[in-house]
Amino acid sequence: MQFGLLNAVRETRLPLRIYYEDTDAGGVVYYANYWKFCERGRTEWLRALGFEQQTLLDEAGLAFVVRKVEGDYLRPARLDDEIVVNTVMADARRASLKFTQYIERGTERLFTATVSIACLDLASGRPAAIPEHIRKTLEAAA
Amino acid sequence: MQFGLLNAVRETRLPLRIYYEDTDAGGVVYYANYWKFCERGRTEWLRALGFEQQTLLDEAGLAFVVRKVEGDYLRPARLDDEIVVNTVMADARRASLKFTQYIERGTERLFTATVSIACLDLASGRPAAIPEHIRKTLEAAA
Amino acid sequence: MQFGLLNAVRETRLPLRIYYEDTDAGGVVYYANYWKFCERGRTEWLRALGFEQQTLLDEAGLAFVVRKVEGDYLRPARLDDEIVVNTVMADARRASLKFTQYIERGTERLFTATVSIACLDLASGRPAAIPEHIRKTLEAAA
Amino acid sequence: MQFGLLNAVRETRLPLRIYYEDTDAGGVVYYANYWKFCERGRTEWLRALGFEQQTLLDEAGLAFVVRKVEGDYLRPARLDDEIVVNTVMADARRASLKFTQYIERGTERLFTATVSIACLDLASGRPAAIPEHIRKTLEAAA
Repeated sequence: MQFGLLNAVRETRLPLRIYYEDTDAGGVVYYANYWKFCERGRTEWLRALGFEQQTLLDEAGLAFVVRKVEGDYLRPARLDDEIVVNTVMADARRASLKFTQYIERGTERLFTATVSIACLDLASGRPAAIPEHIRKTLEAAA
Repeated sequence: MQFGLLNAVRETRLPLRIYYEDTDAGGVVYYANYWKFCERGRTEWLRALGFEQQTLLDEAGLAFVVRKVEGDYLRPARLDDEIVVNTVMADARRASLKFTQYIERGTERLFTATVSIACLDLASGRPAAIPEHIRKTLEAAA
Repeated sequence: MQFGLLNAVRETRLPLRIYYEDTDAGGVVYYANYWKFCERGRTEWLRALGFEQQTLLDEAGLAFVVRKVEGDYLRPARLDDEIVVNTVMADARRASLKFTQYIERGTERLFTATVSIACLDLASGRPAAIPEHIRKTLEAAA
Repeated sequence: MQFGLLNAVRETRLPLRIYYEDTDAGGVVYYANYWKFCERGRTEWLRALGFEQQTLLDEAGLAFVVRKVEGDYLRPARLDDEIVVNTVMADARRASLKFTQYIERGTERLFTATVSIACLDLASGRPAAIPEHIRKTLEAAA
């Protein structure tokens, strides 16, 4: 199987509660905070595969950084809501990953996003190949 | 039993994960964010008694607002840590509550706080008596 | 002049300082926070035309809400950096606005975004025409 | 003059605008965010003396970390408000500083705080003496 052709490998669902800190004076969740929820979702997706970002940083000097995002705000989330962040890997290449994410409240879709991630060598600041053992895990999960 | 004498009625434990959004360039959790964790803890404490802040707002025009806080930063929490927010009601009066809260990572204590809360009538902006049905629930829980 | 054809009516430049609260454990600004900076930029753009969001809310029951965003992360901002948020109105229609925004540090471009905004009637939750006096101001500024 | 006796050395005033990101569904500034404003105030106080936190970190491996805070919430700040953060050094010791801070809107006082800061050696995680050149600057400013 070719690595670049992986599609929708795994999906993780992360349930979250909306607290005061997430809302704004408009009475709904502040628009930038959906990106926090999405990042929590991607972190749990990675953790479900057995990887932690801190370990990647400490052991290999690598970090996954966001390059590009697109987001559609469909309906607002509100205080005390229970929402679910769904995270799907849409594509994987030598030095980058692409995710599709959507946030739901029950069966209502509130927010959808696509997020492009690059693997970076922090010392040089340049793109780096995703480590072999992570690539193998991604392939095995396909 | 006298309402003002209630001590340490109930304790709730809320487990939380530390994400990138919680940390700062010092490599640890940003100091203001411990107060977010504490507010999540108090909200879950209230929810465990059967009350939601949004309902209180909509039905009675009342809100619990923070009047005074004291916090001690003992050890820093870090990315990927699992922490627990412990919330104990230390005192309850006619129009106010006082909480003791502490945040732990395993058996290590990271942060302790005391938080004084007032019950406010939002229309007048003035202190208001805590509604009878909430007081009764607090007493029953004692 | 036709309202829908307005392009790049005005540009506002909002200088900002990066504080600890904006950064994360990767040592750079947390990716969601660029959207906070963009929202500050749009608010100042609106204020430069003589409008405040709170007034719009109180007097007309209207709010400008974000419908769609696209963002490109080019280079990271860091603690103590001075950045500038540039905000340009790219299009205006009967019930919506579109902005192009970019964030710079000196002559380096760090982040670019497009943001689509809808004017909403908060009582009904439905799109509403942008009030006449705001439209006239936008046209006069063209 | 004895270093430990310094009182109220300098006061800096930092004007800030309240944006949507600072508020919550209660319609006012979220309580944890006053601590963000205070940290901006202390950073500008330090910068006014000629020091940046990033430089301190890079050159000496030292960081100023918060040990203890006390805060009184007197009146809420709201969307679009212009506030001023006042920062005064109340005490300076060999390895620690203490600040008094208050936030005002015009002549109304909204929030007061005391903040105890320790100077830490990041490699060892232990308290470290404040560097001589910073101490001399603090004394000269007295």
